[in-house]
Amino acid sequence: DYHVDWDAAAAEKGGYDYFMLKEIDEQPRAVAETLLGRLNDAGQIVLDEVRLTDQDLRDVDKIFIVACGTAYHAGLVTKYAIEHWTRIPCEVELASEFRYRDPVLDRSTLVVAISQSGETMDTLMALRHAKEQKARVLAVCNTNGSTIPRESDAVLYTHGGPEIAVASTKAFLTQLTACYLVGLHLAQVRGVMFADEVAAVVERLQRTPDQLTALLAEMGPVRQLANDLRDASTVLFIGRHVGYPVALEGALKLKELAYMHAEGFAAGELKHGSIALIDQGTPVVCVVPSPVGRGVLHDKVVSNIQEVRARGARTIVIAEEGDEAVAAYADHLIRVPRTPTLLAPLMTTVPLQVLACGIAAARGNDVDQPRNLAKSVTVE
Amino acid sequence: DYHVDWDAAAAEKGGYDYFMLKEIDEQPRAVAETLLGRLNDAGQIVLDEVRLTDQDLRDVDKIFIVACGTAYHAGLVTKYAIEHWTRIPCEVELASEFRYRDPVLDRSTLVVAISQSGETMDTLMALRHAKEQKARVLAVCNTNGSTIPRESDAVLYTHGGPEIAVASTKAFLTQLTACYLVGLHLAQVRGVMFADEVAAVVERLQRTPDQLTALLAEMGPVRQLANDLRDASTVLFIGRHVGYPVALEGALKLKELAYMHAEGFAAGELKHGSIALIDQGTPVVCVVPSPVGRGVLHDKVVSNIQEVRARGARTIVIAEEGDEAVAAYADHLIRVPRTPTLLAPLMTTVPLQVLACGIAAARGNDVDQPRNLAKSVTVE
Repeated sequence: DYHVDWDAAAAEKGGYDYFMLKEIDEQPRAVAETLLGRLNDAGQIVLDEVRLTDQDLRDVDKIFIVACGTAYHAGLVTKYAIEHWTRIPCEVELASEFRYRDPVLDRSTLVVAISQSGETMDTLMALRHAKEQKARVLAVCNTNGSTIPRESDAVLYTHGGPEIAVASTKAFLTQLTACYLVGLHLAQVRGVMFADEVAAVVERLQRTPDQLTALLAEMGPVRQLANDLRDASTVLFIGRHVGYPVALEGALKLKELAYMHAEGFAAGELKHGSIALIDQGTPVVCVVPSPVGRGVLHDKVVSNIQEVRARGARTIVIAEEGDEAVAAYADHLIRVPRTPTLLAPLMTTVPLQVLACGIAAARGNDVDQPRNLAKSVTVE
Repeated sequence: DYHVDWDAAAAEKGGYDYFMLKEIDEQPRAVAETLLGRLNDAGQIVLDEVRLTDQDLRDVDKIFIVACGTAYHAGLVTKYAIEHWTRIPCEVELASEFRYRDPVLDRSTLVVAISQSGETMDTLMALRHAKEQKARVLAVCNTNGSTIPRESDAVLYTHGGPEIAVASTKAFLTQLTACYLVGLHLAQVRGVMFADEVAAVVERLQRTPDQLTALLAEMGPVRQLANDLRDASTVLFIGRHVGYPVALEGALKLKELAYMHAEGFAAGELKHGSIALIDQGTPVVCVVPSPVGRGVLHDKVVSNIQEVRARGARTIVIAEEGDEAVAAYADHLIRVPRTPTLLAPLMTTVPLQVLACGIAAARGNDVDQPRNLAKSVTVE
């Protein structure tokens, strides 16, 4: 039974060196909580608060996702899911940029605001700008009764429990989970997915907590690798499709925690300039899509791995169980359980969290409280 | 008269140490050539090849810009201009990602493909995918008769002359210029700008070659600064609005040429994680928008500059002539001529090119032929 009281457990590290390590390990439960009770008896997705009619959601012809930092990366993944499932055009924007350009918004625009704290000032300001333009707003937040959900037309809470470490881990995985549910809800209300199709995806989502538990049990070699990389001056991350935001997130974690040069790239973009960074021994983390999802995508990433390796990179390859094609090009091979293509970030992100946490700890940094950072950014 | 033969001059460095330096200095002329003869007697923007009717362009309800590397940054700037002038929703995509996700495209979608060589394989593949979905394609290219313009429905050539250095400089400025013209053309054909409004913007564009000449004459302190920064381990770049893609481009140049950690950020996004990178003395290049364009935007950037400075950053501030508010927070102040808000990247990019070239040269790198890179990327 996943239903224990978060509050009692959250205040202490419970034997872990850092809150971040504890929160990484809490991810199976956090995802399970976020999924709990989301499918009603009629096979429909249930949001927490809905002040919109189904007709409002059917009228939506454009979606903007606004968010900052890690939540922005969750938004980037969500775009793929929403467009694939609903065919509604979906754009993801940094909240701090959104209201200072002139976004084209109207009554049939849905804005999805993602914020762990529900108090992120940039996101709140973007939300208010959207409401002034008469757009509808749906919030994905972790904190009950916070400002962003209060000012939104609909809310889906990530029941991830309190996150103490400044660098988000379980917040990210629960945001992904919640956003998948938003996409499925839209698809269902608009009649573009059958109830059994929705249920099949939910069923796959419901399997992820156990898969995460299994994955977390295999992180020993990643911790060892983190120790080896403590003195690296640069770590690059590449991915395609939903693996691209995962690469960005992996790099952000390393910047936040280890204060080192880390950057995520769309794997196909590297050769248009940034591949110049790769020198003998430069670690490059490669997030590989499933070979069974879209074969050509997998093949392209394999060829990108060969490219960086030909220029001297030390390749750290995150690949699905059973993907044998990548093994020959991996200096380090990290396996993740198999998921449907769109859900893969729920798995591939985890080793990158463990890696960043391990490198930061090996460098003697304060993992839970990185320099210059606040947990909830309530200024613009 | 700007009309001299590019071919005769292009093959030699003409007294410059590097082709890149020569091409930076050719920018006033390259922009002037791109603008030449673009406004006909009726005050209408003239494209080079148009196999689309005005009605086709009036039917457009969505624009995708697809490009790679530096051309992608030109596309990011273009989005602001097109949405501001035409109110058509415009999305910018890395060409290598475009066709592997499922973009929502149809007959009323316009895809703008930007490529200096006209042979960039990722961009060509994105174009072909768009055409399969029945979208219209408009190419912005520098090379007459190359594949991308040949397969497009309309073409605007950047008459920038051959670019020899691998890292794009004049190609970027001429792409921006051409893309502004595309935006104006769309606005005019759709009747959302009057001919005199279009002519006023064109007139301001036509002033930029002289402004660039004046700017380039003031680059001595930037070259000196480049020399000072040769041993920096990290240089960060921040900007908002059209200054954000300029920050990305400045960082890309430094990665390509100097092989150093350089990353561009939306200024408001930094505090959501990456500000942890800033240590005592970390150089941060700040691209400041005009105080007369949108005051709140300027104020936000000034406050971002204060934030990074409070954390120890050494600030290198690129600001318009007459902007006195930034002076107090600038360790180095680089002035650029005043332009309308949307056109500012034509100026603010230039010192970043000079800086990257200078740092790379000071580090003893091959400026014209960086490691791992090809001028035209004709593989996917």
